[in-house]
Amino acid sequence: MSREAVDHAMILAAEERLAGKARLTPILSSPFLNEIAGRQVLVKPECLQHTGSFKFRGAWSAISALAKKALRRGVIAFSSGNHAQGVALAARAHDAPALIVMPSDAPAAKIANTRGLGGEVVMYDRATQDRDAIGEALARERGLTLIRPYDEPLVIAGQGTVGLEIAQQAAEQGVAEAEVLVPCGGGGLTSGIALALEAEAPGMLVRPVEPEGFDDVARSLASGRIEENAQRAGSLCDAIVTPSPGEITFPILARLCGPGLVVSEDEALAAMALAFAHLRIVLEPGGAVALAAALFHPAEIKGESVIVVASGGNVDAHVFHDALGRVPTT
Amino acid sequence: MSREAVDHAMILAAEERLAGKARLTPILSSPFLNEIAGRQVLVKPECLQHTGSFKFRGAWSAISALAKKALRRGVIAFSSGNHAQGVALAARAHDAPALIVMPSDAPAAKIANTRGLGGEVVMYDRATQDRDAIGEALARERGLTLIRPYDEPLVIAGQGTVGLEIAQQAAEQGVAEAEVLVPCGGGGLTSGIALALEAEAPGMLVRPVEPEGFDDVARSLASGRIEENAQRAGSLCDAIVTPSPGEITFPILARLCGPGLVVSEDEALAAMALAFAHLRIVLEPGGAVALAAALFHPAEIKGESVIVVASGGNVDAHVFHDALGRVPTT
Repeated sequence: MSREAVDHAMILAAEERLAGKARLTPILSSPFLNEIAGRQVLVKPECLQHTGSFKFRGAWSAISALAKKALRRGVIAFSSGNHAQGVALAARAHDAPALIVMPSDAPAAKIANTRGLGGEVVMYDRATQDRDAIGEALARERGLTLIRPYDEPLVIAGQGTVGLEIAQQAAEQGVAEAEVLVPCGGGGLTSGIALALEAEAPGMLVRPVEPEGFDDVARSLASGRIEENAQRAGSLCDAIVTPSPGEITFPILARLCGPGLVVSEDEALAAMALAFAHLRIVLEPGGAVALAAALFHPAEIKGESVIVVASGGNVDAHVFHDALGRVPTT
Repeated sequence: MSREAVDHAMILAAEERLAGKARLTPILSSPFLNEIAGRQVLVKPECLQHTGSFKFRGAWSAISALAKKALRRGVIAFSSGNHAQGVALAARAHDAPALIVMPSDAPAAKIANTRGLGGEVVMYDRATQDRDAIGEALARERGLTLIRPYDEPLVIAGQGTVGLEIAQQAAEQGVAEAEVLVPCGGGGLTSGIALALEAEAPGMLVRPVEPEGFDDVARSLASGRIEENAQRAGSLCDAIVTPSPGEITFPILARLCGPGLVVSEDEALAAMALAFAHLRIVLEPGGAVALAAALFHPAEIKGESVIVVASGGNVDAHVFHDALGRVPTT
């Protein structure tokens, strides 16, 4: 095994930088969800994190580690919206300008919130343009520091603090062995959690969850090499649609994670409805895929308990309304 | 001052019985809500409590104090739904049968969830029948112990644990002085929080919040004696519609609370929409009135920070959909 770019010690260091800054999200559960899933379902609602997703952790981790000179020049990020908001808020708290490159089809709420948090927003076309190239060119031009959304050790370390919390909170509930289902785009959250749990809760197995048609991580884990998605846009699960797992994240995922799980958009919407009714939290489709896997794919999961990360809740009202129509009538 | 039926020591005792049973709900906030309110808004989301409201605390507090013989015979509660669910779940955990008397106009979700938690549900007409009389007759007939929704010392003590948590969590955020806005029906939650804060955070002032047309507590505080509502039904804020403050709760409210605040149903729905968009939590109308007061009645509140209890999130999808239409377009 070659040395990885991020490790448990970096996650512990990120935890210290995040102390009093990130919110300690609780663990939620419902007897109604346990009944549907056929096992205990413990939900880690990162939709309750600052800016409505776990992305604030990685953004704060990376920005809080920058030199004062770099902060004065500012940072840049490319993101469909959750990383954007995390970077905008963390940058503002550090008095650093933030330029955010967002796809033109990002949810309106995410664009508005990013601007509301002080970010300068530049749009691009997700289907035809390469956001990495755009981001890197703008960063060079203005002398900005690029905060990558997942393939960046300090960002992965920040997301890994979710894993530290899961290890402790699950232990408090007497759960030492469980599969941990994580909504997965580029793999920053999934790899960070996997590294944290490797050290702190070795009885846990992390499994990435993706939407149908965008299952690059599941296919990459199956083939043993980085696979790409045919489509780059067109999913309600915008938060976790990325071209492929990252060069830094993939080796970690391949070493530590179990097989990927894949759910349909309908299942993600139904999971949002059940989270509304039984957990009283707001999830976006991409943030609900792990809960959907726990509820609707129980035969693909092992163990008496399953831990689910609900990674984000930035969703436009019309999409949430569509999901509400899926609340089972009782 | 005459001796009150419940005190700080009883709240501390309830806290011990609730340890590891009630969920420690976090404190949430959003820069967008701060901007609307013109001050820092700290939200205590009891919608994330077991059964979706603070009522689980009081129910557990009362039921966990019963003798084994009484538990075997069972308990009875009358409730529009939140107390019902709290009693049903707490009773089930103690292997006690639970009979729940609910108004026929209670939200469908609350009725279904109460049954789903093992409660036996009996309906009554809120406009024409006296639920107290019905409850007491059924309790006598079957030898059940009546768990009153608010005018019961052990229930008030349980709800008071919300105040213990607020005192500690606000202190962690450097807030020692603030008004604490609490959705108020019969006054169990409000009086419990007021007693806890009197002892633990004397710089806080508790203020009950009610919907227009059901402002019996505000009028009672103003007149110094128990006033009744003209109407007994017909509010979206079903959770906090009660005929009048309780005989045990009112003297506590009168001694400790500031003037009541009153909001419209439209304001409660708009607060639900803003909680959806910026806190990613699901609130029911009655659970959103304190947030509505903070956001839409800022001139009636004092201080740099305000603490808001979001007391419940058991809401039917069609009502939530109506609220979603109030999300301000951005």
